[in-house]
Amino acid sequence: MTNSIKERLFLLREQMSEKGIDFYIIPTSDFHGSEYIGEYFKTREYMTGFTGSSGTAVILRHKAYLWTDGRYFIQAQKQLAGSGITLQRTGEEGVPEVEDFIREHLKKGDRIGFDGRMISAKTGEKYQKIAEEAGAFLSAGEDLAGDVWQERPPMSKEPFFLLEERYCGRGMEDKIADVRKEMQKAGADVHILSSLCDIAWLLNVRGADIAHVPVVLSHLALSQGECVWFLQKDIITQEQRNYLKERHVTVKAYEEIYDYVHALSFDAVLYDGEQVNYRIVKSLPDGVRRVDGKNPTEQLKAIKNSTEIENLILAHKKDGAAVTKFIYWIKTQIGKEEITEFSAVEYLLAKRNEQENFLDVSFDTICAYGANAAMMHYEADQESCAAIKPEGFLLVDSGGHYPEGTTDVTRTIALGPLTDAMRKHFTAVLRGNLNLAAAKFLYGCRGSNLDILAREPLWSMGEDYKCGTGHGVGYLLNVHEGPNAFRWKRRLGQEDTAVLEEGMVTTDEPGIYIENEYGIRIENELLCRKAEKNEYGQFMHFENITYVPIDLDAVDVQEMTPSERKLLNAYHKKVYETLFPYMTEEENIWLKEYTRAI
Amino acid sequence: MTNSIKERLFLLREQMSEKGIDFYIIPTSDFHGSEYIGEYFKTREYMTGFTGSSGTAVILRHKAYLWTDGRYFIQAQKQLAGSGITLQRTGEEGVPEVEDFIREHLKKGDRIGFDGRMISAKTGEKYQKIAEEAGAFLSAGEDLAGDVWQERPPMSKEPFFLLEERYCGRGMEDKIADVRKEMQKAGADVHILSSLCDIAWLLNVRGADIAHVPVVLSHLALSQGECVWFLQKDIITQEQRNYLKERHVTVKAYEEIYDYVHALSFDAVLYDGEQVNYRIVKSLPDGVRRVDGKNPTEQLKAIKNSTEIENLILAHKKDGAAVTKFIYWIKTQIGKEEITEFSAVEYLLAKRNEQENFLDVSFDTICAYGANAAMMHYEADQESCAAIKPEGFLLVDSGGHYPEGTTDVTRTIALGPLTDAMRKHFTAVLRGNLNLAAAKFLYGCRGSNLDILAREPLWSMGEDYKCGTGHGVGYLLNVHEGPNAFRWKRRLGQEDTAVLEEGMVTTDEPGIYIENEYGIRIENELLCRKAEKNEYGQFMHFENITYVPIDLDAVDVQEMTPSERKLLNAYHKKVYETLFPYMTEEENIWLKEYTRAI
Repeated sequence: MTNSIKERLFLLREQMSEKGIDFYIIPTSDFHGSEYIGEYFKTREYMTGFTGSSGTAVILRHKAYLWTDGRYFIQAQKQLAGSGITLQRTGEEGVPEVEDFIREHLKKGDRIGFDGRMISAKTGEKYQKIAEEAGAFLSAGEDLAGDVWQERPPMSKEPFFLLEERYCGRGMEDKIADVRKEMQKAGADVHILSSLCDIAWLLNVRGADIAHVPVVLSHLALSQGECVWFLQKDIITQEQRNYLKERHVTVKAYEEIYDYVHALSFDAVLYDGEQVNYRIVKSLPDGVRRVDGKNPTEQLKAIKNSTEIENLILAHKKDGAAVTKFIYWIKTQIGKEEITEFSAVEYLLAKRNEQENFLDVSFDTICAYGANAAMMHYEADQESCAAIKPEGFLLVDSGGHYPEGTTDVTRTIALGPLTDAMRKHFTAVLRGNLNLAAAKFLYGCRGSNLDILAREPLWSMGEDYKCGTGHGVGYLLNVHEGPNAFRWKRRLGQEDTAVLEEGMVTTDEPGIYIENEYGIRIENELLCRKAEKNEYGQFMHFENITYVPIDLDAVDVQEMTPSERKLLNAYHKKVYETLFPYMTEEENIWLKEYTRAI
Repeated sequence: MTNSIKERLFLLREQMSEKGIDFYIIPTSDFHGSEYIGEYFKTREYMTGFTGSSGTAVILRHKAYLWTDGRYFIQAQKQLAGSGITLQRTGEEGVPEVEDFIREHLKKGDRIGFDGRMISAKTGEKYQKIAEEAGAFLSAGEDLAGDVWQERPPMSKEPFFLLEERYCGRGMEDKIADVRKEMQKAGADVHILSSLCDIAWLLNVRGADIAHVPVVLSHLALSQGECVWFLQKDIITQEQRNYLKERHVTVKAYEEIYDYVHALSFDAVLYDGEQVNYRIVKSLPDGVRRVDGKNPTEQLKAIKNSTEIENLILAHKKDGAAVTKFIYWIKTQIGKEEITEFSAVEYLLAKRNEQENFLDVSFDTICAYGANAAMMHYEADQESCAAIKPEGFLLVDSGGHYPEGTTDVTRTIALGPLTDAMRKHFTAVLRGNLNLAAAKFLYGCRGSNLDILAREPLWSMGEDYKCGTGHGVGYLLNVHEGPNAFRWKRRLGQEDTAVLEEGMVTTDEPGIYIENEYGIRIENELLCRKAEKNEYGQFMHFENITYVPIDLDAVDVQEMTPSERKLLNAYHKKVYETLFPYMTEEENIWLKEYTRAI
């Protein structure tokens, strides 16, 4: 028997009382600022019962709060019911940021507590300042939630593999040389890198320490003369050790990073204060100059090289074939056999498994029928999931990992009769998706300049989706990757989206979510390419690299302009031509009709 | 006989040589960072011969450079021909910013010179840092260009008037109280305000010290207890002196600002380092804390109050009637009488003069026929201006000042046969104009999020206009006003456009400029209004407050979507209904046809 949330909070508060802590902060993170996290790190989920991928809990002696964003409002409301934890809807009017909330409620002599490895240097320093200003205290060495969690799983320690150059396109020596150049530009002689995807990209290694994010739990310290990789050493093979040694990479134990950093004798250290944890930065010797800047790897890995691009297109063809076979199956079988959300996920996985080199899904498949799709990140559960009926919408958001890269695609499938509102909403979402994909723009534009192209069809009806329009996609890494994104809103302390560079891949996924009714999302991936260069500058455009038909049964043709219809028809023509070789004869007959010009 | 540019540069270089100055910087500015400047301050124009409203000259011992932006490339190229001054096209690839240029060329022991009253504190501090880093020197007390300029006109010293509350909507005491609140929030106990429009807005005064910008050359210092206005004291009447005294405004001499600032005994001073001049900030005592932030008046004056809005709409009706009468005249008279660009400007001015309370044009009218319109800020000259023929396009960009506010409107008028390219370009510009005006968006959007709506029809053809899409408009002040604007590009050190607030007025003026052929621009003013508020947030939209028909003779209806045609027809219906009472019977017959639905 596991404890209830109330019991867990009771035990945590006992610990808080013992240590004199008045505000205990539990973020959703690991020691690396990862978005998705290993089971060992899921203290926020354990303490609150909320399973979403994003959120911060703040536990007070007599109250408790959970902040999460628009993707999870509906889900969090359900999961927090009865726990005594109050939901704080981030981004809604009148809802304070976590820091503002603490600043407002903190009294002189109070104590803020958190695990300094679980919070970024930047955020930790904010709490430090808040405490100082209030005459309060800070304890950053407390893993109280971990102490309470008796059945806590061990930290992951999976083996890793080297990604061949025919997949990654560039050797690690070249990549390290690039980072060293950027360090020189920034005037730093040592660089601390903790972001797991960045380390994996830099060293051309892939692991399995986070579900569906093939990274290796580790830190890295790079100077002009040395490259030190801090990882759980017993996972490394002798062959790998030799390989790294030949490339002048020294291996040290995972926990040694703090002592190593404390003993640094360099003048200036470059780190990303939003990525490196608070304890690492607090461990730096006083004399070292801190250069707080982006990890150079962030931009370098976002710009896919020509090998990666060639591979990615192949990955999308295979993945598109799997998803399209799934759509064919569900469109033709619905009403004839029993299908649940869960069995649909299994069928889709089977189709992906048929594809050459398929490694893993790139995130837990969202297969949400009817009202479930109004929860943006719904995950079907074998026991409680919905049966799928021949009516309304099924939303399927899924992706695959291949050595040729990572995919992310969403289709909303009409399974039978739709209401006029459903059709109107589907068409508005589709128009947004098409208009953004068709954008031609001058070099220098950011996602924030383009976002409105996807959103305007919904905004003009007074509707919206409470999230960004799209995110960058890693190459056999996290399916969410920066710095490129489509997003209009700049929240406090949030970076603006990056300038769109040739070789960046960003998803285009407008949607609409009607609580208790349905959800619609259409997601393609857009590869940024150069168009013509002329007196006005360098024009850019997107190549749509997702090849999956869009359900014409849900389109209200009258709501589309002639040019939007042309865009859809051209896309469908490309989808048909691309997928044809992957499909059976029967599937192709269906696909031809399903991708017809309208 | 005035000296040639080469002679002027020769004399300036003699001065530079005497003072040991190697880089002499001449910005386009006055002592207040004004955009438009009085004749006294036009040293950059005097020294280079370039008459555009924006640009920076840098004179070296043997070379000379002028930086200006895309609006002026064509004009500057013509005007600099033969002067030996090299044009630097700001924003074009490979063209350094002025500061980077100086940083690159400055050698140890060199000396940079400028007039510290003509350069902002922020820019002056950058040059100071550049000099320090290079081991070079800085002289900020040198008005060398002024010394060379023997026929220099005196500094303007025009009387001013008080703007009645039925026009400005709020008393100066209320406005000052608002600014004092913002000072408290910023933790400042004194505020130095040098921006002429901000001072005029705050004190509800209007003057005539800059052509078409009704401001009073002055500085202002505000603390919780005191409001000191530094102006050329002999312009003030006894009545005005009493009025100000009653409202606790102390008057001091214009030049006293520097001594006053030097003697400040306050703890913290708030100023906008981009607006206040370098000499003022260098005059501050060492012990005073500097709070560098926006002038609170910038945001306050940009949000028009309900009285101002009501007045503005009236101003636009009268002004729209004048412009429409002008269009009627030129469309019906062209080919029948001799019309030149200059006589057209005079006719338009006469029509504005017929309007009740018309005070002045809000800027020099741009009336540009044929290829002249490719120069965005062309000004017709009586001697050299073009004759207007019954063919091609005439571009007229003009505006008026009324006690009810300021207008800015551009129409491109077809006077006879057009080419297909002209029609295609006109329609693309029109579509951009309509699409931006029709935007509905969530509160929080900035102009940078919306700009692409105006630009996309041109970008999709690989074309662009090398400037922002629109600017804020002052109320009987500068026709260009921040912080709101439509612009996508963020240049180094340039602020992003502001969040669009209810009550802000911004122009919507996409265009296209084909060198040596023609120019097209369509400009309306958009008043930001609240739309519905729902679960997604507060929606916003625009009210088009410019009432002037758009030339249907230039529209290619086939290039417009049905929804775009609806937008145009709805706009024209509103124009007809609004202008009807202002027109003669004959004009109304024409207007009805000219605003017909397509």
